[in-house]
Amino acid sequence: MQEIAIIGVGQTPIAEHWDKSIREVAGEALIAALRDAGRDTVDAIFVGNMLSGILANQENLGTLVADWAGLRGVEAVKVEAACASGAAAVRMGMLAVASGAMQCVIAMGVEKMSETPMSETTAALATAADADYEADEGISFVGLNALIMRRYLYEYKWQHTDFGPFSINAHANAMHNPYARLHETITQEDYKRAKMVADPINLLDASPTGDGAAAVVMVPANTLRGNTNRVVTIAGSAAATDSIAVHDRRDPLWLSAAAESARKAYQQAGLTPADIDIFELHDAFSIMSALSLEACGFAERGQGPRLGLDGEIFLSGSIPIATQGGLKARGHPVGATGVYQIVEVVQQLRGEAGKNQLANAKIGMAQNIGGSGSNIVTHILRSR
Amino acid sequence: MQEIAIIGVGQTPIAEHWDKSIREVAGEALIAALRDAGRDTVDAIFVGNMLSGILANQENLGTLVADWAGLRGVEAVKVEAACASGAAAVRMGMLAVASGAMQCVIAMGVEKMSETPMSETTAALATAADADYEADEGISFVGLNALIMRRYLYEYKWQHTDFGPFSINAHANAMHNPYARLHETITQEDYKRAKMVADPINLLDASPTGDGAAAVVMVPANTLRGNTNRVVTIAGSAAATDSIAVHDRRDPLWLSAAAESARKAYQQAGLTPADIDIFELHDAFSIMSALSLEACGFAERGQGPRLGLDGEIFLSGSIPIATQGGLKARGHPVGATGVYQIVEVVQQLRGEAGKNQLANAKIGMAQNIGGSGSNIVTHILRSR
Repeated sequence: MQEIAIIGVGQTPIAEHWDKSIREVAGEALIAALRDAGRDTVDAIFVGNMLSGILANQENLGTLVADWAGLRGVEAVKVEAACASGAAAVRMGMLAVASGAMQCVIAMGVEKMSETPMSETTAALATAADADYEADEGISFVGLNALIMRRYLYEYKWQHTDFGPFSINAHANAMHNPYARLHETITQEDYKRAKMVADPINLLDASPTGDGAAAVVMVPANTLRGNTNRVVTIAGSAAATDSIAVHDRRDPLWLSAAAESARKAYQQAGLTPADIDIFELHDAFSIMSALSLEACGFAERGQGPRLGLDGEIFLSGSIPIATQGGLKARGHPVGATGVYQIVEVVQQLRGEAGKNQLANAKIGMAQNIGGSGSNIVTHILRSR
Repeated sequence: MQEIAIIGVGQTPIAEHWDKSIREVAGEALIAALRDAGRDTVDAIFVGNMLSGILANQENLGTLVADWAGLRGVEAVKVEAACASGAAAVRMGMLAVASGAMQCVIAMGVEKMSETPMSETTAALATAADADYEADEGISFVGLNALIMRRYLYEYKWQHTDFGPFSINAHANAMHNPYARLHETITQEDYKRAKMVADPINLLDASPTGDGAAAVVMVPANTLRGNTNRVVTIAGSAAATDSIAVHDRRDPLWLSAAAESARKAYQQAGLTPADIDIFELHDAFSIMSALSLEACGFAERGQGPRLGLDGEIFLSGSIPIATQGGLKARGHPVGATGVYQIVEVVQQLRGEAGKNQLANAKIGMAQNIGGSGSNIVTHILRSR
């Protein structure tokens, strides 16, 4: 497959954008990415989104975004893979360029979650689970993650407080990210005392939803001329699924789709976990940080929390995660999250990550998780 | 771009499948297509669907279908482009194979529309329109098409009855299609007397919704060995958009996205309208048949109904349409329709269209329309 380059990125702050409809939030990120790439049009737009139909009464979202952003006529489509919709859209866009049928595309993610009552949003998020055998039984999405975390604590003998560093790190890094939803540092004491949401998941284990959009512009790498300092290429890209229902898994504590998509991405890139300088993982809940680190080869099974306790996940550590705040503090506008992750890796590889900049970041990984680990997309990016 | 071949097709009857959930309907078509292709697995599944989130509380549909069909683990994603979701999924699958990243994929469409009250389904379908500036004003999807048809009758001086042949042809052809929703012939008198839905669209201008799924298996054409009699290749594939709201168009009677996507597909295939032996067009409403025929170069502007009145659209005519019943009588399970169209073209090109078989059909076109002409995908297929 020919090599694909990311030549522009854009994002909106994640917030409650009461003054903007979904088309406006999307358009803002799309236009920012085009401007960053120095382009004024594209061959196609791939819009990652999970909930526009349910929360905004709007399907045909690709068309709406193309129309609003001044690109009426351009091919456009919506891509959905639950909370992994964003990375799935990037992957579709990448494959479309690699096919030779397109020369320049935008892949983006957008979600608008503030306009509906929280109970409606919670029900909408449960559509990522098995409607007949999970959601219809009354369990919410945080409920499913709570069952997983409870089992993990029991099985591997950790204390809940051992997960604190994941959230503390995310909040600390978000302080310097102007696009982040939350700008407040937290302490281990705050983490310990946070209100319970679904035992053992408390408020500081869980990521906040929000309104936001992020976008990337992609072209074939071999078409680039001149100064390519700011260009980042896609060295690996893969996706895999698992059973949609958690109860159907042989081992609910092993993210097989994370392991499989990471394995393929490492193989494509010719790399191992030791080569990864930054890992934007899907910390929708702190338990997911541990499971992702284990599935992707950064920790032994059951030992994910150790990387937090040892400080290895901090900006100064061996495998920095959530470098701009992660889902936990940057925010989790579900269908957009996967693109935010990729934008943040690009920023690090370009050396444009501001106060959160890592020294010598050359290779970064982004992993976007849909459902309770049921649909996972992994990308490895490389600076030129 | 390398040439892609369709090596297997499958479909379910379109009906009210009260005994089957959406996963079961999807699984039936997927497994039928795999069997037809003689394969037992694929690298990825692309599921075209518009309404599962709203009508079945189920997003993450790609994962659900992979899991249910016995392909747990395989990459899977949902593709949405309103009523053009089916063809959009085929196009995404085709591009993925053409990229070189995949060797064999399934693209399919599925929709389950019978389980919800008709008022809810009508509201759900309106999510294909502009939520803020069309649907929120109270207009339904059939209402938008009625405005277009009314304008057409006024502008080009046709009588409503002049559209009768479109529906009569579709119903006649559906009689011999065991997968069709409706099996009843209709006369010009029936058409004239049908109950009004949204003036001037009456019940026999409008296609019925339903539950159904259709699927195709695709591989790179150059990997095929041995007898390739039943293989059909994709000679052209393109998509385009228009404004999402009808009122934003310079000319609401011209399907610019149909014209543009057809132009690109003709160019890729090196063909003109005169080369097309069969055209599965998107007759969701009879007015759409006229507009598609005009936009794709089969009739002058404003002269589409003439092809019906002259019998050119019949199986014996110069440009047969709706050869297995079309949306009008085969049925319109929205996100699945585009794949049904492609399956039917494949059947004709293989010589497996039963009593509706055209003599010497070598080249067929399928055109799938999302929204009120706002997102359109056109494919040209060729027999080997």
